[in-house]
Amino acid sequence: MKEIVQKAGDRSQKVVEWKAPEELRELMDLDPTAVGETHEKLLMRLQDIIKYSVKTGHPRFVNQLFSSLDPYGLAGQIVTDALNTSQYTYETAPVFTLMEETVLKTMRTCIGYTEGNGIFCPGGSLSNIMAVNCARHFMFPQTKKTGMFGLPPLVIYTSELAHYSIKKAGYLLGFGDDNVKLVKTDELGKIIPEDLERQIQETIDEGCTPFMIVATAGTTVFGAFDPIDKMADVAQKYGLWYHVDGAWGGGVLMSKKHRDMMKGVDRADSVTWNPHKLLGVPQQCSCFLTKHVNILQQCHRADAKYLFQKDKFYDTSYDTGDKTFQCGRKVDVLKFWLMWKAKGSEGFEQHIDKLFDNTRYIVEKLKQREGFRMVVNEPDCTNVCFWYVPPSLRNMPEDEEFWNRLHTVAPKVKEGMIRDGTMMITYQPQKDLVNFFRLVLQNSATTYEDMDFFIDEIERLGKFL
Amino acid sequence: MKEIVQKAGDRSQKVVEWKAPEELRELMDLDPTAVGETHEKLLMRLQDIIKYSVKTGHPRFVNQLFSSLDPYGLAGQIVTDALNTSQYTYETAPVFTLMEETVLKTMRTCIGYTEGNGIFCPGGSLSNIMAVNCARHFMFPQTKKTGMFGLPPLVIYTSELAHYSIKKAGYLLGFGDDNVKLVKTDELGKIIPEDLERQIQETIDEGCTPFMIVATAGTTVFGAFDPIDKMADVAQKYGLWYHVDGAWGGGVLMSKKHRDMMKGVDRADSVTWNPHKLLGVPQQCSCFLTKHVNILQQCHRADAKYLFQKDKFYDTSYDTGDKTFQCGRKVDVLKFWLMWKAKGSEGFEQHIDKLFDNTRYIVEKLKQREGFRMVVNEPDCTNVCFWYVPPSLRNMPEDEEFWNRLHTVAPKVKEGMIRDGTMMITYQPQKDLVNFFRLVLQNSATTYEDMDFFIDEIERLGKFL
Ligand SMILES: Cc1ncc(COP(=O)(O)O)c(C=O)c1O
Ligand SMILES: Cc1ncc(COP(=O)(O)O)c(C=O)c1O
Repeated sequence: MKEIVQKAGDRSQKVVEWKAPEELRELMDLDPTAVGETHEKLLMRLQDIIKYSVKTGHPRFVNQLFSSLDPYGLAGQIVTDALNTSQYTYETAPVFTLMEETVLKTMRTCIGYTEGNGIFCPGGSLSNIMAVNCARHFMFPQTKKTGMFGLPPLVIYTSELAHYSIKKAGYLLGFGDDNVKLVKTDELGKIIPEDLERQIQETIDEGCTPFMIVATAGTTVFGAFDPIDKMADVAQKYGLWYHVDGAWGGGVLMSKKHRDMMKGVDRADSVTWNPHKLLGVPQQCSCFLTKHVNILQQCHRADAKYLFQKDKFYDTSYDTGDKTFQCGRKVDVLKFWLMWKAKGSEGFEQHIDKLFDNTRYIVEKLKQREGFRMVVNEPDCTNVCFWYVPPSLRNMPEDEEFWNRLHTVAPKVKEGMIRDGTMMITYQPQKDLVNFFRLVLQNSATTYEDMDFFIDEIERLGKFL
Repeated sequence: MKEIVQKAGDRSQKVVEWKAPEELRELMDLDPTAVGETHEKLLMRLQDIIKYSVKTGHPRFVNQLFSSLDPYGLAGQIVTDALNTSQYTYETAPVFTLMEETVLKTMRTCIGYTEGNGIFCPGGSLSNIMAVNCARHFMFPQTKKTGMFGLPPLVIYTSELAHYSIKKAGYLLGFGDDNVKLVKTDELGKIIPEDLERQIQETIDEGCTPFMIVATAGTTVFGAFDPIDKMADVAQKYGLWYHVDGAWGGGVLMSKKHRDMMKGVDRADSVTWNPHKLLGVPQQCSCFLTKHVNILQQCHRADAKYLFQKDKFYDTSYDTGDKTFQCGRKVDVLKFWLMWKAKGSEGFEQHIDKLFDNTRYIVEKLKQREGFRMVVNEPDCTNVCFWYVPPSLRNMPEDEEFWNRLHTVAPKVKEGMIRDGTMMITYQPQKDLVNFFRLVLQNSATTYEDMDFFIDEIERLGKFL
């Protein structure tokens, strides 16, 4: 264990010791067996597991919206595991019940809510599901009793570049794909408010019922912040529930310098914010926050008598279990709380400011370097999206063939970096843009040298393509 | 950390150092601060957190459907935390992708499925939600596109003693409370198949559409196993999706002696099984298993291009992320796998057999002891439900006053045990029965002496009531 932690920051280690699925299966003998094994054998197995797992704490793992391994976060996680409790009643989780309440309250203050409620969910997707469920209950409380049968289609609006969890929430909650409308975005990837309003009108004209708008504060690929304040105007005008998905970008609220990107967020009915992303808290740590004090309880309560006995000898309003659709719930607050106590809000602020500074650094470098080309010239967040154009393509006319060939570059460079284990950066197409790299800065231990390395390494792997 | 683990099994320690919410808040200073704190201060804080948290690993914590702290389970959890990854693509979680596949396959074999699929979910409630979603998609695939608007009400049937997560799944997925029908149970707490069929007929007569039956294998309070095979007949007759919620009791499948309680489970379309309950795996570890190979993917896929690129250089059928409504997903398999490798299937079998043996022991004792009275005479599972009748009530006629007074006994005894910190056993009313104790045996380290202690302690706390 110590070994993983110590090696995590060590740049001379590989990020990944790549094996294809078939090879790895051969190597590892994963089948459960009838008879137990010795300690020595188990330790060897653990070493193999560690060896072939991706080192997500490595400074050169910039593949996802999470990375790094905070020592306080890890300590908090380990104490959580050793205490092995479930967070539904005060009785079984007294400390964590109060801790969750306090942390959520402070987060609401960051948003600018004067009152409200919230809960930790196992991931941002579930926080977004929670948002859709609260919105539905707020607008159509009868659905809890009679369901959605017989209602005219209820419609949600979000960005065409929103995270797919909004779509998935739409399926799951019974709205269907057709009733999650995707609003057009501009060249920076931000929602065009006029298109939002046009689509709402269209829904009304078709006899369907708009009920919810979802803005994204930090889109998954571009890191774009939707125009939160303007969209709040639209939500207000039509009387719709307004949710801001700040799963990725929410962390900027901790920085005086950058929090203005979320101006107007206090007007939202609810917010998703994942400290496990921009703030670097270990997986997983996601919060759903709302300005409505009672909605979570109203929407989810089932009053199970075996858990939420009303004749308990303490104030049962501390039994939080009926605020969610979960029953057993892992404690996700301690690791975040411990990091907060250790660094202070100041520490988180410095972390955020450093990430944005790193972003400026690498963006400048990329703009100057031959063969690199920005997809988004001035990123809102710490997502850096760019193409690498190998020499063989540099003098071509930018016709279909050019783009088709450029489309194949990123996957090949990615394959190279994974086989060599030197770094991990993801790529994807988006809208009508061919495959480009998305490098995400989320670890404040990433140095300028690391960023120079990323650029050199892409060139090394791609220059003969 | 070591301290928690070592103390976990120590009977001389209190199970809980009780403080009411207001007192605890005073004691702990939980507010996040602007400036960070020193290591010493943080360590003291961690000690307080541990002190005031419930020792769920204590042999005298029999309050919930989880307890104990398996050292291999904890080791697996800690390695998981240190690796801090997310399980959606093979690329970020190669080892855990294969491990999950292998473990789920072995679990399907325990059920008796010859093929199928599955996924780990953050808790049994979410596994049950998954079941309802798969059932809906299987029966009405168009709902993914158009939602439930315009359909006649679709109806789910489950036991009046089923876990409340089925109701909550009903709200969340848009069916509404009215369309989760509760089937009557007999005096042992098992579904009466005739009432199930009667209700299905009633639904059809009303012009609504039955689509799903949920059996419970081990109800939350009584531990009753519904007649799984007979209910399968009904499901088959009407062509409905058949789900078995074995969140609690599923572990009996590991025991040759006890697995017959789930006879017919291989006929179910899907099964929820929480290794974190009867098998003693640390929180949380819950599996959704289905005999339908493609349903999870069909039902949940959104094909996000940024994560599930089809031009990757490896077989992307290993990218499991689109099998669920989550995006980031914590690794829950390693702790279970490590326990399995350490003990072997044999070890789990012995664990289960020991729990049932303990149950027999305490049931016999309770039957013999004056003042104790069984609620369920011969429990199916390891839930032991009983009343304690204090001497002051023993010679009363069993009229309304008797029951009203008996109803107040368990809460007072519970208060006493928590204030003294000697043990934790829960109580609840159910159906028309007044408050009774439910003692759950789930830790194979519980000894006969512990069980004698439970009985003596209840008597000590209750005899003057
Ligand atoms: C904008 C946005 N929302 C929601 C999510 C979902 O968060 P999680 O992976 O914790 O479910 C993501 C994940 O990348 C995201 O980028
Ligand atoms: C029968 C049954 N099903 C489902 C659940 C829900 O499991 P979880 O607490 O993991 O959500 C429980 C929990 O007690 C249960 O007893």
